[in-house]
Amino acid sequence: MRRRLLLSLLVIAGCSRSSAAPAPPSSAAPAATPVSPPSAAAPAPTGPAIALQKRALADAQAYATVRSLVDAAGPRLSGSPGSKAAVPWALGAMKTAGLADVHAEPVMVPRWERGRESGAITSPSHHPLALAALGGSVGTGDKPLEAEVILATSLDAVDALDPAKVKGKIVFFDVPMERRKDGSGYGKAVGVRGHGASRAAKLGAAGVVIRSIGTDHARTPHTGHMRYDEDKPKIPAAALSIPDAEVLRRLLDAGETVRLSMTLGAKALPDVEGANVIGDIPGRDPKGGIVLLGAHLDSWDLGHGAIDDGAGCGIVLDAARQIAHVEPRPLRTVRVVLFANEENGLRGADGYAKAHAAEIDRHVLALEADFGAARVFESRFRGGAEGHAPFLALSALLGPLGVEPSEGEAEGGADLIPLMEAGVPVMDLRQDGTNYFDIHHTANDTVEQIVPEEIAQVSAAYATVAYAAASGTDSFGKTPEDKRKIR
Amino acid sequence: MRRRLLLSLLVIAGCSRSSAAPAPPSSAAPAATPVSPPSAAAPAPTGPAIALQKRALADAQAYATVRSLVDAAGPRLSGSPGSKAAVPWALGAMKTAGLADVHAEPVMVPRWERGRESGAITSPSHHPLALAALGGSVGTGDKPLEAEVILATSLDAVDALDPAKVKGKIVFFDVPMERRKDGSGYGKAVGVRGHGASRAAKLGAAGVVIRSIGTDHARTPHTGHMRYDEDKPKIPAAALSIPDAEVLRRLLDAGETVRLSMTLGAKALPDVEGANVIGDIPGRDPKGGIVLLGAHLDSWDLGHGAIDDGAGCGIVLDAARQIAHVEPRPLRTVRVVLFANEENGLRGADGYAKAHAAEIDRHVLALEADFGAARVFESRFRGGAEGHAPFLALSALLGPLGVEPSEGEAEGGADLIPLMEAGVPVMDLRQDGTNYFDIHHTANDTVEQIVPEEIAQVSAAYATVAYAAASGTDSFGKTPEDKRKIR
Repeated sequence: MRRRLLLSLLVIAGCSRSSAAPAPPSSAAPAATPVSPPSAAAPAPTGPAIALQKRALADAQAYATVRSLVDAAGPRLSGSPGSKAAVPWALGAMKTAGLADVHAEPVMVPRWERGRESGAITSPSHHPLALAALGGSVGTGDKPLEAEVILATSLDAVDALDPAKVKGKIVFFDVPMERRKDGSGYGKAVGVRGHGASRAAKLGAAGVVIRSIGTDHARTPHTGHMRYDEDKPKIPAAALSIPDAEVLRRLLDAGETVRLSMTLGAKALPDVEGANVIGDIPGRDPKGGIVLLGAHLDSWDLGHGAIDDGAGCGIVLDAARQIAHVEPRPLRTVRVVLFANEENGLRGADGYAKAHAAEIDRHVLALEADFGAARVFESRFRGGAEGHAPFLALSALLGPLGVEPSEGEAEGGADLIPLMEAGVPVMDLRQDGTNYFDIHHTANDTVEQIVPEEIAQVSAAYATVAYAAASGTDSFGKTPEDKRKIR
Repeated sequence: MRRRLLLSLLVIAGCSRSSAAPAPPSSAAPAATPVSPPSAAAPAPTGPAIALQKRALADAQAYATVRSLVDAAGPRLSGSPGSKAAVPWALGAMKTAGLADVHAEPVMVPRWERGRESGAITSPSHHPLALAALGGSVGTGDKPLEAEVILATSLDAVDALDPAKVKGKIVFFDVPMERRKDGSGYGKAVGVRGHGASRAAKLGAAGVVIRSIGTDHARTPHTGHMRYDEDKPKIPAAALSIPDAEVLRRLLDAGETVRLSMTLGAKALPDVEGANVIGDIPGRDPKGGIVLLGAHLDSWDLGHGAIDDGAGCGIVLDAARQIAHVEPRPLRTVRVVLFANEENGLRGADGYAKAHAAEIDRHVLALEADFGAARVFESRFRGGAEGHAPFLALSALLGPLGVEPSEGEAEGGADLIPLMEAGVPVMDLRQDGTNYFDIHHTANDTVEQIVPEEIAQVSAAYATVAYAAASGTDSFGKTPEDKRKIR
């Protein structure tokens, strides 16, 4: 069975023995097989998916699409004016891309507003701080919270502090993030953002500041979601820009008694209506299943939401636009979902899974673009065992784009979590994250950070995979039950 | 006479015929003369100035000095807490550097406070703006100024507009600045910052926003000084970050009617006391004159004042530290002046010239370090005709640092203007300005922007020139009367 399924993908890929793929100009390398990573010596794949890939590169509109979203809607935190403006923009963009059954599906989303915020080191010298409340933080009641600062270099380190020394102070979590191509420094550092406030509050702290979870040295703090433990006092929490965190650290390291003042106007408001925006390229076979391409339409409030996740929206919309114009249409439906509220709630993801519960099993493969606009360098898969060979065949199609398959397990994207929990297989097209966390969740998230040629490669990769996966009948299986628990 | 004077410098430079400068390893190039720009084929200069230069490079403390200033004082706009804290810091730093007669000379300085500020494009879509009042701007009375936006691409372009179309609107000056090694893009673009408000007010505008005068694409607006014509209404003026200016321009170019709201809390307050901080390395010859090394202690308020002009302070203090430890001391006095209020008034410069009027003629040469922390690539001179040869001899000493002399006329630095107006000769050590205007006058002006190896080269260049100029008896003449008018 796996052999037969693989074969259909190989035909799409132009990698079967009967294909007309040209031999390499002069090489004694063995004939390529779908399980080999692509190399310069392997025959270049051909076929309709590759033709589509070339058109996607030559006729790329992802960059222009992101710019259009940014200009039409600006920042798009759930419940903001921008998040409302993004919905009609997305409906229009999907129709322009040639999708069918374009519609919005309402979901209730949380609303959190930053308000005005400011802060300064007040002693031993005066340093105005570039800071930003963490998403979900309570405010300081519009009056300053001023207190002495105490350093913690990890969550464990704060647990080890004497509560008498923490009580009434502002805990400063100083956890530098490492720059890595795969972005893996983020997961190692981000714990203090999510949980630092409650861990400090447990010891009686009055507030928390963190060194921004980022890799830059700009005065643009990185916000991001945080959560309070229900059984701990809710204390205000803010990110300092990295240069500000470094001043603070140097003063503490010099043995100074440092006092800090911050005023955070942040507050939670009642939930409001948001929407997922959905459009299809209907498959020729009504029973052929769905290949889902996701991205999220919301963004944090500080920047323009261009790389997070305007880029993802541009990538999947441009991929879909290419596929929508191919005749004959693929067997399977290619569905684009622009999710609401990825950043601070996942209400869009949950809403989609609930609204489409009856057809979740029809989702044969899902991908989400939510890692900026830099080039794809690697593919990964998570699904059923029988999906591995089709995954490799799909990956072989990405050889001309410089993408290699990895044995690592796909993560799938936050908006795909409810689908993954239901066993839907996912594929990652992993983008270069070397510079992503210079910008992530900061005011600098603007369209100027996107290189048009790079985002074109990404949308070409998504177009290739979605088209090939939808054109075949291969099964990617179901993710085994023991691997479905994610949150 | 010129020959004799030149000779004393050539001895310092180790470039006289009797010097033990090694011949180049294998080259048929003509013997180097002080008027040739240095080249790989020229004999390397030797002598005490070069020995000092090598020590300055090996034992560089300029970076640490800037960091110390930033940590002790933070931003240092005239009248701010940081500007007050900087004075005792500077007194201490000069004493530590080994200077004598270290003292502060009070000057009254203007005080301008930014207050709170915010803004947004309100129509056709909502875009919060990263903006900053220009220094000296009036505020909006703590209530928003909201109006339609009208574009002007130059000062001349606004003059050509129909007043009926400008009245009550916010004029948006969109003048991109070119990136240039010599920073010359700044002068071409900065006119709209200084004069845009009054030129627009003349036609009845309600306010002005400008594209930041800078070369970056960060959400950190560039402030800077502006002036009102006395006979025009004073209207609020702010700089937009460049990505925000680009959104605004795209909306206008798309034919949209764009409205913008801004609230500027800026206000002028009564003058307060500031201070120039001065220290000497007294020359052995009481009549030997003064070689002045200047920088400015104040900064704009948005950043930490590290490159503008913490770097200059670090450069001249470290240069002086090296010279202070040489025995025997130079014949002439080397004086370090850290000026108050360069950014928004030049009160420190004027105060120094007034307080030292009786000894202005003793200033044989003056240099100011006020262009960041990147490498020196070129030297320039302005002074008497007899100063040209000594200038070239000084420049020859900088060959090992990769610095070449230029025929262009030195500009001398804003704090040297009153001295230049009195005929004091100046020398520029021109630093690479390619990236300087990414950061200039923004929140990103932090010590992280300084590369320690680069600023070490700069302080070594200043040390070399100051030591050699103070060790000789060459005259740099007086700047001819017809070249003294600068402001």
